[in-house]
This record gives sequence, C-alpha cells and structure tokens, in this order.
Amino acid sequence: MGRVKRIAILGSTGSIGQQALDVVRASPDELQIVALTGNRNLRLLERQIREFQPRMFCSTTRPDTSYGGEFLSLDEIAGHPEVDFVVVATAGKAGLSPTLAALKTGKTVALANKEVLVMAGEITVREASLHQAQILPIDSEHSAIWQCLQGEESKPQRLFITASGGPFYSCSQSQLSQVTAEQALQHPVWKMGRKVTIDSATLMNKGLEVIEAHWLFSFPFGSIEILMHPQSIVHSLVEFMDGSLKAQLSRPDMRLPIQYALSYPRRWPNPELPRLDWSKIHSLDFEPVDYDRFPCLRLAVDAGKSGGTYPAVLCAADEVAVELFLSRRIGFTDIAKIVQKTLEQHRNIAGPSVEEILAADDWARECAARLSLDHCAEPERRSNLGIER
Amino acid sequence: MGRVKRIAILGSTGSIGQQALDVVRASPDELQIVALTGNRNLRLLERQIREFQPRMFCSTTRPDTSYGGEFLSLDEIAGHPEVDFVVVATAGKAGLSPTLAALKTGKTVALANKEVLVMAGEITVREASLHQAQILPIDSEHSAIWQCLQGEESKPQRLFITASGGPFYSCSQSQLSQVTAEQALQHPVWKMGRKVTIDSATLMNKGLEVIEAHWLFSFPFGSIEILMHPQSIVHSLVEFMDGSLKAQLSRPDMRLPIQYALSYPRRWPNPELPRLDWSKIHSLDFEPVDYDRFPCLRLAVDAGKSGGTYPAVLCAADEVAVELFLSRRIGFTDIAKIVQKTLEQHRNIAGPSVEEILAADDWARECAARLSLDHCAEPERRSNLGIER
Repeated sequence: MGRVKRIAILGSTGSIGQQALDVVRASPDELQIVALTGNRNLRLLERQIREFQPRMFCSTTRPDTSYGGEFLSLDEIAGHPEVDFVVVATAGKAGLSPTLAALKTGKTVALANKEVLVMAGEITVREASLHQAQILPIDSEHSAIWQCLQGEESKPQRLFITASGGPFYSCSQSQLSQVTAEQALQHPVWKMGRKVTIDSATLMNKGLEVIEAHWLFSFPFGSIEILMHPQSIVHSLVEFMDGSLKAQLSRPDMRLPIQYALSYPRRWPNPELPRLDWSKIHSLDFEPVDYDRFPCLRLAVDAGKSGGTYPAVLCAADEVAVELFLSRRIGFTDIAKIVQKTLEQHRNIAGPSVEEILAADDWARECAARLSLDHCAEPERRSNLGIER
Repeated sequence: MGRVKRIAILGSTGSIGQQALDVVRASPDELQIVALTGNRNLRLLERQIREFQPRMFCSTTRPDTSYGGEFLSLDEIAGHPEVDFVVVATAGKAGLSPTLAALKTGKTVALANKEVLVMAGEITVREASLHQAQILPIDSEHSAIWQCLQGEESKPQRLFITASGGPFYSCSQSQLSQVTAEQALQHPVWKMGRKVTIDSATLMNKGLEVIEAHWLFSFPFGSIEILMHPQSIVHSLVEFMDGSLKAQLSRPDMRLPIQYALSYPRRWPNPELPRLDWSKIHSLDFEPVDYDRFPCLRLAVDAGKSGGTYPAVLCAADEVAVELFLSRRIGFTDIAKIVQKTLEQHRNIAGPSVEEILAADDWARECAARLSLDHCAEPERRSNLGIER
C-alpha cells in the first residue's frame, strides 16, 4: 500500500472534475483532496469546498469560505509542494500553464484537457521528460491504449482509436448541413460538456485525440487509425508487431479511466463502476472511418502532422466556430469550413514557444470570428439559419 | 537480445508441432531446435530431422537418420541439460511424464497438450512452483488471457473464455443426435487434429480449457465463464476489479500464440502471421453459452470442480468415446452419455499421485469401452447408426 495521494483537481466543477470527485469519494483511504479549482460555477465549488475542505482553492470569483483554506492561482496550486498529483480537468487553453507548472515540479499529471497536448504537445512532453514527471491520460480512448500497453516490452505497430460517431454518423452531407444545436447536443453514448459534445458530432474530437495519442505515446501519425464503433464498449485497441491486438472494454463511464489514472499501477475495486453484461451485448460493430463526410477529422490530423502552431490554430478556430454554432450563428457544416479557412490563412511557426502558441491562439480566434461574420453575411446562409439582420 | 533459446518440440509431426516449426523457421536467430519427437508419422519426422538436424530425437520407430543425432526417450529429452525450452505438443496423456521431467529440471514448458493440466493440474503446478519453472500456455484462449494479464498488478475478477461454438452451435438437440463424423470434422474456423475438432464440436474442448485456466492462472472455477463468439477473433477476455476488461484479438492462427510463448516477454515481427483487416470485420458477436445443449461442457467443469481423479477419468472416457464416434460406432450425442456414465461409476481419489491418475485413466478407458458396447447393443441405436451385427 502506497501513502495517500494528495490530489489537486483543476476544474472540479466541470463534468470530468465532478466525476473525479466521485472517484475520490469511493477511495477515501487512498486519495486526499488538497486543492479544488472552478471557473464560473461558484455555488458548486463552494459545496465541494465544504465537503472536501481542501488546503487550497481557486476560481474566477473568490468563494465564500469560512474554514480557512488558501486562495491561490492555478499555477501556484499545480506547482505546490503539498500536491502529489494534479488532475487537469479544465477546458481549452486554461490547462496549459498549470500543466507545465506541475510537470516542472515533477508531479504526476492526469490530463483530461485535450488542448494541452494538442496546442503544446512538444513542449509538454519535453518538460515531462526533463523533470521525470508522468503524464497520464484520462480520456477513455487514451486510457484504453495505455492499459493495453502495460507490460509490453516491444513498441506497438498500430493504434486504433475507436469513435462512436456521435449522433450524425449515418447522416448524409445535406442532412448534416441542417443539424441544429439541440440535435448535436444529444450524444448517444457519453454525457459530456457542450463543447466536447459538438466536437464529437463533427469528429473534431477524434482528430484532437489522434494528436494527443501522437504525443502521449510518441507514436507516428501514419500508424494511428480511427475505427467507428457505435456501441462505445471497446475504447481503443493496440496492434503489436506479431499481429496480436489488445483492446480495453467497459461500459462507457468516465469514472473508470479517471480511477485508473488515480489507482495506477494498481486497480481498485469500486462497486459504483458499471460491469459489462454479456447477456445484453450481442454485437460489437466496427467500420473504418469516412473522412469525407467529417472534414474536421482530416483537418485535425493534417494540423497535427504539420505541427508548429497549426494545432493551436485548429483548436482556437474550432472553439470559436462551435460557440457560434451553439448560439445559432452558423450551421453545423460551417464549423469545418471556418476551421479550414483559418488554417489556410495561418503562417505557421515551427517549434514554437508557449508565448508563440498563445499568440497563434489569439490570432486564430480573431480570424475565425472575422471569417464567420463574412460567412453569416452571405444571404443564403442567413435565411438557412433563420437569422434576420 | 537474449541468447538463442534451445528448443525441444515433443510431438513435432502433429498440427501444433508443425506450426511451431514454422515459427522457428521465421526466427532462426532467436530459436534453435535441439530435439524433435514424433509418434507414428515417421516420414514427416525424418524430413524434419533432415531440415533441423536436432541433437536428439524420439519416435515410436527409430527413424532412419545418418547424421548422428541421439535417440532418447521423451523424458530424457525433456530433462536434458542442453534443452532450455520444451514445447509439449503431444496428444493425450503422453505429455504428462515429459512435462514433469522438464519442470523438475527448471525448464520453461510451453504447453499445447491440454490433458497434462486437466489430468494432473495440481501436481504439475506444484512441480513448476517447487523448481521455479514456468508453464506457458499455447492454446489461443489461454495465451489471450496471459497476454491480457501482462503488467497487471491486481488479480483479475473474471476470465471469459471465448468459444466459436464449432459447426453445430445452432443445431437443435435432435439435429445433434444425427451428426456424422464427416460433419463434425468440418470446423468452421480452426484447422486442428481430429480429436480436438470433435471436442470443439461437443464443447468438451471448452470444458477442458476451463480446467486448464483454473490451474494456469490459479483462478476459481466460479469466476471462469464461457462466451460464444462465432468469429473467433477475440480469443478471450479478462475482467479486472474496477470493471475494466482487456481482450486479445487476432485472425485465428495458432502460430501467433506459439510464437508469443517462444518470444515472451518480447514479441517478434513475423510477416507470415496474418493481420486483422477492419474493413472486412463488421461485427463481433457474443452470447452466453447454452450449457443444456452441450452437456460435455458441464461434465468437464463439474469434473474440474470435483478434482481428484475425476478430470483424468473425463479425459480418458472422452478419448474413447470420440474414437468410437469417429469409427461410426456411436452417435454424436452418445459421447456425452458415455463420459457421464463413466464419471458416475468412478470412485474418486482426492489429491492423487501420478500413478493413481494413470490407473484412473486405464480404468476409465475400460469402463467407457464397456459402456459403449452396451450402448451399441441397444437395437434402436444399432439401426440409427446403420450397424449390422
């Protein structure tokens, strides 16, 4: 038995953060919450602080607490000597700086914030290696690959990332252009935040996962494949040089990969986690992905291959476009168009610094917003969306 | 790179033995054949001896060789100091004594001969542990479980052994009673020896695999389950205490588990081994097993649970019954009846010695033969089988 792990959860009020707290509740002898941070959901953060009484906390507004914890910045918490293990469950680029702060102090980082590795994979992996710090995946797909790699001495040959396909995988191109935000927010399998749910529907999410897998497992893009698998039971597969594959399976529940990262290298019993029932699963279906209908996937993989500041631009443009889609300003298929045009207008910087990455992010947001204004100004588009100007 | 492994293949002229030689041909820098043994197929053994020029060999008849290898008994070969690694690919009880001889000299044994662990699991596992010798599985199912257990610190919770179901899984009870030897020898997936093919059709084979898994992984019978999986792509699964499962997949080809045992803990590239093609696999189907239609499965698991000399009696009675079925003396569904009646007449010995196990085997063969004579004497049965006396 190891000593109790002292955990900081950055983004504890989000979907992943709340599920991480569920995992902590199930293993109170193994895990201790020493820091919680939220963003805008102050009420929930205050409730969490009352329950877990962390030594440190952070949020946009200072929470009303009477028990005497310390209000610190995300970076201060991530680098704090009383923290062993940092769960980065923030959204967007907010996770980048605290992740680097945690790695620089040699801490283990469990990463749910996709953008960190997508925007700054090279820097993040370098810092981890420099300070002998570990980056553990929390995404179900990367956790699956990581579980399948345990105990294997030889490098694998191919990674297969599975994709449920989201709610529109069987839609035609013309049906896709008519998709509403309400429809896109109904994911058939996973209950997630709004941004991730839309990214799942466009398959941008899978593209970002390919980039993450590239950095997490130092694996070439050409050997990372996407397999459509609507049941979301097989979370990913690894193929080895002898033709043998390993797959990790479970009922879709994010608490499992979260707990695996927290319990690693052991596993813990947790009666809350669901069991696969083979009398109910009759068939697991697989199909190679159709890149043509889901251009965001190709854009993401190409941005990952090109490297430099392209992936940061991809992320930022996508964030802007998804926000515009959710506020009914653009159509579903416009998301890919805006991301593509932003990437086309970008002048790449190879081997960028964090500052250059953040500058590219700023530039891309402005560019995507401008492009979408032009886009919305097209009369046909306006009438399609029912927008009156 | 480790030094070259010096391999003895016991039963090199059988199906597994020949495929083991294919694996050796593909990795000549890693593996060296120092001993080959056959049974009745002298011609093939002589060809193999000419090709691999082993230091030692054995067969029923002394082979005609001019190059000067040494003719030794199976036990002498298995315990020989110039052998590092013994592949036991013999059939029936022939593998028991040389397996014990190899384990007693601390060698690694790769076991394809099911009967060794089924008949004498307790003794075999005890000898391995006493002499710090390893038993590696070669069966595709046990290899799958073993691969899935790599790197896992915590004991698994359930093992799922998959079963293709053989050629008759969708047959009714009355259809099963009309099955001919020719039909039963057509296995839909695996090309194997005649005895194993019939055992696959009755599911006796799966029952023996449950007993093997019990001993190989020191796992309770109550936590080993059978899953019907007609495609034979997922070779078995392991469920861990957190609800996560790992599965091992590949195109059905015995050379893969054979090579894994030989390359362990590494894996080797082998262009001869087939790759899964996901554009051709659309669906993997699973279904809990139907014990009622396949009584041999229940008989085997019950014999395993009861322990003592019951599993040896099961194996011997099955061998006799399968032989009688193949020579058209009894019907397909009579196999289970004869095995069951033999088990019912047996007086069990708990914690038996090797001698007691072999005596139980002799007794069971006689008993099963006598029972089947009585069985064949029934007039209705005779006319069903078209037997004239």
